[in-house]
Amino acid sequence: MNIIGHFINGQIDTQSARTQAVYNPSTGAETGHVALASAATVEQAIKIASEAFPSWRDTPLIKRVRIMFRFKQLLEENSEKICQLIGQEHGKIAHDAMGELQRGIENVEYACAATEFLKGEFSKNVGPDIDSWSEFQALGVVAGITPFNFPVMVPLWMFPMALVCGNCFILKPSERDPSSTLFIAELLKQAGLPDGVFALINGDKEAVDTLLHDPRIQAVSFVGSTPIAEYIYATATANGKRCQALGGAKNHAIVMPDADLDNVVNSLLGAAFGSSGERCMALSVAVAIGDDVADQLIAKISTEMQKLKYGAYSDQNNDFGPLISSAHQAKVVAHIDSAEQQGAKIVVDGRHAKVKGYEQGFFVGPTLIDAVRADMSSYQQEIFGPVLQIIRVESMQAAMQLINEHEYGNGTCIYTRDGEAARYFSTHIQVGMVGINIPLPVPVSYHSFGGWKRSLFGDLSAYGPDGARFYTRRKTITQRWPAADVREKTQFAMPTLN
Amino acid sequence: MNIIGHFINGQIDTQSARTQAVYNPSTGAETGHVALASAATVEQAIKIASEAFPSWRDTPLIKRVRIMFRFKQLLEENSEKICQLIGQEHGKIAHDAMGELQRGIENVEYACAATEFLKGEFSKNVGPDIDSWSEFQALGVVAGITPFNFPVMVPLWMFPMALVCGNCFILKPSERDPSSTLFIAELLKQAGLPDGVFALINGDKEAVDTLLHDPRIQAVSFVGSTPIAEYIYATATANGKRCQALGGAKNHAIVMPDADLDNVVNSLLGAAFGSSGERCMALSVAVAIGDDVADQLIAKISTEMQKLKYGAYSDQNNDFGPLISSAHQAKVVAHIDSAEQQGAKIVVDGRHAKVKGYEQGFFVGPTLIDAVRADMSSYQQEIFGPVLQIIRVESMQAAMQLINEHEYGNGTCIYTRDGEAARYFSTHIQVGMVGINIPLPVPVSYHSFGGWKRSLFGDLSAYGPDGARFYTRRKTITQRWPAADVREKTQFAMPTLN
Amino acid sequence: MNIIGHFINGQIDTQSARTQAVYNPSTGAETGHVALASAATVEQAIKIASEAFPSWRDTPLIKRVRIMFRFKQLLEENSEKICQLIGQEHGKIAHDAMGELQRGIENVEYACAATEFLKGEFSKNVGPDIDSWSEFQALGVVAGITPFNFPVMVPLWMFPMALVCGNCFILKPSERDPSSTLFIAELLKQAGLPDGVFALINGDKEAVDTLLHDPRIQAVSFVGSTPIAEYIYATATANGKRCQALGGAKNHAIVMPDADLDNVVNSLLGAAFGSSGERCMALSVAVAIGDDVADQLIAKISTEMQKLKYGAYSDQNNDFGPLISSAHQAKVVAHIDSAEQQGAKIVVDGRHAKVKGYEQGFFVGPTLIDAVRADMSSYQQEIFGPVLQIIRVESMQAAMQLINEHEYGNGTCIYTRDGEAARYFSTHIQVGMVGINIPLPVPVSYHSFGGWKRSLFGDLSAYGPDGARFYTRRKTITQRWPAADVREKTQFAMPTLN
Amino acid sequence: MNIIGHFINGQIDTQSARTQAVYNPSTGAETGHVALASAATVEQAIKIASEAFPSWRDTPLIKRVRIMFRFKQLLEENSEKICQLIGQEHGKIAHDAMGELQRGIENVEYACAATEFLKGEFSKNVGPDIDSWSEFQALGVVAGITPFNFPVMVPLWMFPMALVCGNCFILKPSERDPSSTLFIAELLKQAGLPDGVFALINGDKEAVDTLLHDPRIQAVSFVGSTPIAEYIYATATANGKRCQALGGAKNHAIVMPDADLDNVVNSLLGAAFGSSGERCMALSVAVAIGDDVADQLIAKISTEMQKLKYGAYSDQNNDFGPLISSAHQAKVVAHIDSAEQQGAKIVVDGRHAKVKGYEQGFFVGPTLIDAVRADMSSYQQEIFGPVLQIIRVESMQAAMQLINEHEYGNGTCIYTRDGEAARYFSTHIQVGMVGINIPLPVPVSYHSFGGWKRSLFGDLSAYGPDGARFYTRRKTITQRWPAADVREKTQFAMPTLN
Repeated sequence: MNIIGHFINGQIDTQSARTQAVYNPSTGAETGHVALASAATVEQAIKIASEAFPSWRDTPLIKRVRIMFRFKQLLEENSEKICQLIGQEHGKIAHDAMGELQRGIENVEYACAATEFLKGEFSKNVGPDIDSWSEFQALGVVAGITPFNFPVMVPLWMFPMALVCGNCFILKPSERDPSSTLFIAELLKQAGLPDGVFALINGDKEAVDTLLHDPRIQAVSFVGSTPIAEYIYATATANGKRCQALGGAKNHAIVMPDADLDNVVNSLLGAAFGSSGERCMALSVAVAIGDDVADQLIAKISTEMQKLKYGAYSDQNNDFGPLISSAHQAKVVAHIDSAEQQGAKIVVDGRHAKVKGYEQGFFVGPTLIDAVRADMSSYQQEIFGPVLQIIRVESMQAAMQLINEHEYGNGTCIYTRDGEAARYFSTHIQVGMVGINIPLPVPVSYHSFGGWKRSLFGDLSAYGPDGARFYTRRKTITQRWPAADVREKTQFAMPTLN
Repeated sequence: MNIIGHFINGQIDTQSARTQAVYNPSTGAETGHVALASAATVEQAIKIASEAFPSWRDTPLIKRVRIMFRFKQLLEENSEKICQLIGQEHGKIAHDAMGELQRGIENVEYACAATEFLKGEFSKNVGPDIDSWSEFQALGVVAGITPFNFPVMVPLWMFPMALVCGNCFILKPSERDPSSTLFIAELLKQAGLPDGVFALINGDKEAVDTLLHDPRIQAVSFVGSTPIAEYIYATATANGKRCQALGGAKNHAIVMPDADLDNVVNSLLGAAFGSSGERCMALSVAVAIGDDVADQLIAKISTEMQKLKYGAYSDQNNDFGPLISSAHQAKVVAHIDSAEQQGAKIVVDGRHAKVKGYEQGFFVGPTLIDAVRADMSSYQQEIFGPVLQIIRVESMQAAMQLINEHEYGNGTCIYTRDGEAARYFSTHIQVGMVGINIPLPVPVSYHSFGGWKRSLFGDLSAYGPDGARFYTRRKTITQRWPAADVREKTQFAMPTLN
Repeated sequence: MNIIGHFINGQIDTQSARTQAVYNPSTGAETGHVALASAATVEQAIKIASEAFPSWRDTPLIKRVRIMFRFKQLLEENSEKICQLIGQEHGKIAHDAMGELQRGIENVEYACAATEFLKGEFSKNVGPDIDSWSEFQALGVVAGITPFNFPVMVPLWMFPMALVCGNCFILKPSERDPSSTLFIAELLKQAGLPDGVFALINGDKEAVDTLLHDPRIQAVSFVGSTPIAEYIYATATANGKRCQALGGAKNHAIVMPDADLDNVVNSLLGAAFGSSGERCMALSVAVAIGDDVADQLIAKISTEMQKLKYGAYSDQNNDFGPLISSAHQAKVVAHIDSAEQQGAKIVVDGRHAKVKGYEQGFFVGPTLIDAVRADMSSYQQEIFGPVLQIIRVESMQAAMQLINEHEYGNGTCIYTRDGEAARYFSTHIQVGMVGINIPLPVPVSYHSFGGWKRSLFGDLSAYGPDGARFYTRRKTITQRWPAADVREKTQFAMPTLN
Repeated sequence: MNIIGHFINGQIDTQSARTQAVYNPSTGAETGHVALASAATVEQAIKIASEAFPSWRDTPLIKRVRIMFRFKQLLEENSEKICQLIGQEHGKIAHDAMGELQRGIENVEYACAATEFLKGEFSKNVGPDIDSWSEFQALGVVAGITPFNFPVMVPLWMFPMALVCGNCFILKPSERDPSSTLFIAELLKQAGLPDGVFALINGDKEAVDTLLHDPRIQAVSFVGSTPIAEYIYATATANGKRCQALGGAKNHAIVMPDADLDNVVNSLLGAAFGSSGERCMALSVAVAIGDDVADQLIAKISTEMQKLKYGAYSDQNNDFGPLISSAHQAKVVAHIDSAEQQGAKIVVDGRHAKVKGYEQGFFVGPTLIDAVRADMSSYQQEIFGPVLQIIRVESMQAAMQLINEHEYGNGTCIYTRDGEAARYFSTHIQVGMVGINIPLPVPVSYHSFGGWKRSLFGDLSAYGPDGARFYTRRKTITQRWPAADVREKTQFAMPTLN
């Protein structure tokens, strides 16, 4: 049996009392089993990382950085293999997997800028002959828990930054598509990372809870659904750790009357149906300003949707692939059902998708739903499937109110040519990542990724400058050298230095 | 009866069903009663602040900044009154209160630099004709819960930064010495702050718990003891808020053989006994390297301790004043008792302090304890009194191990002339604020204050650059303006922008 | 005779072999004489400043900052007097003088943020146990040479930043309106600046050349016309100094067809005629896209221009005042004449301005010129008077080409609602300060002021972050503490630290 | 004949009317001729670069950055070849050439951080609904003129930063050892740099003067001797360009009585004699504090100097190689002669160096001179040879005065264990790059390189953050979107935005 193991102390470890099946979602076939770590296995990895920490932390910065330079090279040289592994277990088409990988590589590139972003602040003469400066020191052993939908990119949001800052890292990737993640872990070793500094642990709640409760784990980064994010945040912090937990999303695009509708349609198709909508930044709701816009938009988009191709990950001509599992496929279909039952109009129906030769694949076709209302459960919840919902409102203000009142505040977009509309929108919308004519406003690696409201728990966003701050602890040194032969007085008052 | 009230919506409010006595610790006399807010009162202040938020957030930055300029002026003009209020209820001598106030004013001065520290990052051409930038937007209504030992300074660590960033602020100061805090709240209004933007609520656990659970409170800053800090952090985060909670301390000074002992003694006296040791940065343990250093140090310091004057806050000639309460006085005495019982040697004994004319004051005299060991409870816990403990070790390494193994990691200091010792110490010590020949290394206002280990829960330190980050939410905008008349293609792959 | 003197070593000095008349431009009357410093006087001021430098440089930063806090207060408290002095000698109306002063105060406010913007960069472990950091140290004695049109604001661009960075400063203000500048120099002393640290020298070429050649002057900041700026830059640099020299301008506004013309007209009126157009950021050319826009614009603006009031500085109802001198008045008239002779159309003619009761004042009325072409001398040169020229082009591209080909590149503006137009314009225009619907895009004090092309010589802009960099010299320290008892090897190769 | 050509428009160009001989300094043999560009050739390269500029400037930043990632890889893969080319024409031993290359590669690594260091500053609400931000835009075509002593490293200080910022670059390397520089130019093309963006021009004064006078060249970076630096700075600035010109050095090390002399000796040997002392950061003067230190130092160092091996570049066992030319060899010998004549004591004499098998090589042996005084010409001038001078003084203060009074202020070092001495020295020494127990304190690539006094003309240092600022022009945009249907008032006063 193909056992997908852990990566501990520089070695693959496939020994495990418990395993879980892994599938090829394009065919529905089981392709292997992933080891599920026991608490003892996780603790062993933490122990090894703790021991590796002091010498890794004290390694000159440029040496840590250069491992990232080499890691980038290796990711590029192995890109086809990585995309193949992603596609096989996740289902996304190679061009999409390549986009994911590329975005992940950008985070490695940013980690190469650590010489710049790890600089502390130095102040001369904060008092007479007293200097003070800050250092951003590594935390120790930190953990990341990542979702199935980006098995390569989301881990790359975390560990390159954590490692370059001098931390050791325990990664618990999704147990549904672990192979690509495991493969890049091996590349990290090949890039020169000392054994023990990084470990990958496959597992389920047992592994997660071990990480959350172990006092040696200093910080936890999480990306997943909001209920789990909330649990992770509350549990990690109750155990005294720092934590950043990214949850769900419902990303709206406002389509203004002055937008070029043909371009909007092309933009929306990719943003709504790319990767089957299994992206936390997928655009799942289009808010049309006025019925005229809505009618035109629906006419054009439903026409274009007829041309979409979906199918197995292995066919580059497909626009998107299957969902991750049959359970998730059923859940997406149920969301469409409920929308229909609650009075929405299914304009294009993807519920009965069939892909020839892949009859057991977990497919849902592109779906367009009109007349959606804010009180529908399919609107309130994240569908995470190839489903685009249309809401009609009379004004931009009404559209913004809708977005601001939604539980989630991850990403959003406005389509307009108007400077005033764009600025008003970006200033006042209660969403963390805003696109102006950009449907998926995922910040580039040198900015940071973070939603608002119940899309992010914690005070620092993921990757970029916030990532560096999250993975380091501030130390402030205040220094004064005594002048030889000068007698100093006692000061009982609160000292002010100057 | 003198009722010390709340400050809500620009008005003093002394109505309260419950109150608690406030004392003059120098005399032991009750001087008034402080109102204890009900949940309803707290909720009312939150409601008012929520309503004040949108227009305050949208006020041009420089206008918010200028209120801080005026506030600084008013604090300076009213410094004597403020120090008088501090002394009367807290007990610290005027020169010490003036030091506290000055340190607080420095935080207001730093808030005046918000035009600089609130700048976001702008990136041109993150993709073809795509720009991206970050904005640090206000959170909404945030809360601060502050301790008795710095009734003016610690609030000033928090609200000037929070306000200048565009937040509304609810302050819950210590109920033991609320008058000075209330007075500066009034100055804030006088400085031009719109009513409702800031509220001061006196109270106890009911008020605190209301703040921790109310969903409109976006963030909580706390300074106090570690058990409470831990509770605050776990509760606030479990309610989805961001939180920074600063707790207890046990600050060690290492005295190296090359240190100038006369200067060390003068420096230690102020750091150990100033403000009766009721400072989270008080130096309460001196670690002497070698018996020779220890013996000399003890001889010199015990001689100097004879000259110390303590007594009522109102006498400027006193070096320090009473403790905050009779209960705390008893606790400090109990710590000294336990040290003695566990085998330490009381070199100078302050347990039977008597101040003529102030026989009911809560005094403990300066106390020096030798032969302290790491297993003694008086070493493991924070005494928060005028007690200096001496530990003897054979090497700097042993001293550092002691410090690194202590539960707390707030501040520490090394006395030496040696560059290597200083650098090794500051690099490897597990403490957040490090002094090189600086006994109380409280970072200046333009750096940030934060301990390590169980001295701080959260990822961002107090005030300074971290304060600005804590009180703002990052928003990242990615912008592209469509070229008129250009037809754009759909992109199904994860977009990489470039 | 009223002699306007120098301010040296904390004293007004009115002794001078040479003087020059100062006028009230509103009446044309001579109001005093300004002392013109000899080389010896300038050298004496430099000597005093050189001696004051070491202790000023070593003054703790916060103490230098606090002088700026007090200086701001004093400027505010004396604002009426300052505006009166400006108006009397410069001619600008009090509301305009107040705007000038306010802008200047903002630079003082920014100087109060020096604790933040003077921070150096600290890097840990650039090699094994090697740290490196930068310090931005004061240069020594630096000089500023400032123009008549902003006798208070432009000096305030320079010396608060220079002083707070630890430099001593010699100011050579305009000899045409020196009184307001001299008055604020006295306030600086009142604010607590030690004598000698700052000197004001009135003078002409002799004083300027002395500053440019004296080896003790480390840096020169200049604002004036381009020919002088070029001379200052070449001479100062040939003498080994650093230099930033700001010169002339010809600021164009593009009026797009989608702009709201009524708002554009209101905006242009102030930007073109405010302060009689004697501003280096005055909008002196409106480029209309299409004849339709041009015709409407001219119709509306010429109507509004009839309502403009100009006259003596002392009447708050006036919109603008006289020019600085009769010579300059003649020059502005000559520019209008030449435009007419070269074929432009004088739509509104201000050449024969008469103000009742102020018949000898140096007035030119608001003037509008249509049909201006790029080859006209009145277009190629800076008029610096209340003259707005209209150029008609067929496209935004043509308008931008015009601007990009002009010798100057100080400020510019576009009026539009269109996001694409605004972004294309701001990205590709060869101008340093760009307004989107902002007619006078003078950067706020926490950004920096600087034109492109022949509007600025030097690499750093004025005030803001660039000002701090200009007035400091970078020092980089690389530090390693030898481990006792470790024998180190010789390294003959170029050391790489790691 | 081996003609070493230019690299223009992606092609090697060996056509040239004039050439100059290139030598192998180890053998004294002529090895080729370098083409000397005519003004026309330089102008052609500038023209091509000017045309390449717009599309290079507008290339998304990450694409420019990725060329630097690939360039780093290529430099590493070709390191042996590069070092061979350096050694053959310059004479330095392979381990030293590898150190040089490594330092150069670090500048390429830093250029990969451009996403971080090119961020502009964004300010929200600088006025009501007005935002303002800065962009750092490329200058256009810029030039670098580099010295013989680091034919690879110094060019790499300049062009990676200039290119990544979006500029086109013309490099005029030393005509004495051009081959390694030419080779890395070819690698740049291989890394993906578009043709025309970079050109290498070999030449002499004709080429240099063409660069200095051509109006299309926006900025000039220079490294060489002080007289030429001064000429470059004055000429470039008189032509309106920005310029940074780095000149000569006389780097002193202070040896304090508490220093470990054995370590100091080992450290000094490499710093004084490595690369035959042909480094602008070579330590050429040791200032001993007290005769006792001096005597011991001389005894130890002269003993160690006997063991030094010098000879041909091709023998890895050599510690250092020949000088660059017979003329320079003669000049170094003349400096030693003059020291002797002026009363200094030649302790170890390298004037009659002979290397077996390399009798025509340009060798000078390691030379130690005692009893040097400040009035000797060999002390006042830069020798640039393997000559270490000893000065004896009585105190650290006297040593610092000596350094501060020297014309140059490039680098310096103190050997001590004492924190006070180190801090006093680094704070008060008038030198730009300071080492604490670091003999060659060349800043790492993420800091900046620059001397003080006559070692640097200009306001920005080379490479690092200052390099980024030097190679970009600040543009500040102030933006406001008009609210539809709101009538705005004219403002004649100087607008304050708020």
